[in-house]
Amino acid sequence: MIEVEVKAKITDFNAVKKMLKKINAEKDHIEHQEDSYFNSPIKNFAETDEALRIREVSVNNISKTFITYKGPKIDSQSKTREEVELEVENPKKIAKVFEHLGFKKVAKVIKNRTIYNIDQYIISLDEVEGLEPYMEIETDLEDGSEFEEELNKIFDIFKKLGINDGFERTSYLELLENKDS
Amino acid sequence: MIEVEVKAKITDFNAVKKMLKKINAEKDHIEHQEDSYFNSPIKNFAETDEALRIREVSVNNISKTFITYKGPKIDSQSKTREEVELEVENPKKIAKVFEHLGFKKVAKVIKNRTIYNIDQYIISLDEVEGLEPYMEIETDLEDGSEFEEELNKIFDIFKKLGINDGFERTSYLELLENKDS
Repeated sequence: MIEVEVKAKITDFNAVKKMLKKINAEKDHIEHQEDSYFNSPIKNFAETDEALRIREVSVNNISKTFITYKGPKIDSQSKTREEVELEVENPKKIAKVFEHLGFKKVAKVIKNRTIYNIDQYIISLDEVEGLEPYMEIETDLEDGSEFEEELNKIFDIFKKLGINDGFERTSYLELLENKDS
Repeated sequence: MIEVEVKAKITDFNAVKKMLKKINAEKDHIEHQEDSYFNSPIKNFAETDEALRIREVSVNNISKTFITYKGPKIDSQSKTREEVELEVENPKKIAKVFEHLGFKKVAKVIKNRTIYNIDQYIISLDEVEGLEPYMEIETDLEDGSEFEEELNKIFDIFKKLGINDGFERTSYLELLENKDS
């Protein structure tokens, strides 16, 4: 799967929410996400631009766990990249498996994500602990698809919402790390 | 978790089934298992006596997928070792994650397993493709527990079933590999 994704810094969530209503984006739900990132014993994912993540998602007190591998970004303007994501039974057990295989937990990213849908696009308003407000718009494509058209459509949605700058390819993980250093 | 486990080669499944009835072991169900084993990019699991496995289990046409990490054996008579096992959504996606992380699929072990229970012990009659019949008796203990007592009880069950030899610490994976070489 290819995740076509663009992120931008937002100055005012309330203004964006009004615009989302105006373009008929539908509010879906709010998630609490706790992400644990792991680094590889054979390479530095910060250098290879890959990621291995355990995500605990809570919606209305029901928790699920997902693991995600993200490949290097394949586009210069966006966060578009290969992604493999699947649900697993339990965050502690999968962390133990990764640790036994030589992977080391390097950081945690915690956020509340308000999710809107419009057509095949998912719009996320993210309140990340320790960062300013961000918005992401993404859609998924089959492996090997052309993604340029979807990317342009995503930038169009940003435009309609009045967002023409503040675009950011750096992950929340790296933004938090850069802040600390 | 510690998996306390003893395996033995069986000459006659039907004789064992009669004895299982006699000692009041309860037949639980039959599973079809397809196991894919992966090797690590940083060490040879055949040498370190570890294992990483994706198991697809089918019972009455319902399939589930589990991943398992097995640590080195910690006992000279049995297959007792640390084990971490959890259910995951999908065999193909988890295989893709492992491959992206540098793990290579090395072998497949396919079997039909008939499962009996007696007290806290699980008795498996295994028809492994390419091997002779085997039986395993196992129980799970919390990490850090003393396992000698459970091990003795497992050998007692073998005795009650009339099995006093044919014990085997080599995994099905290695038995199949040794056969080929």
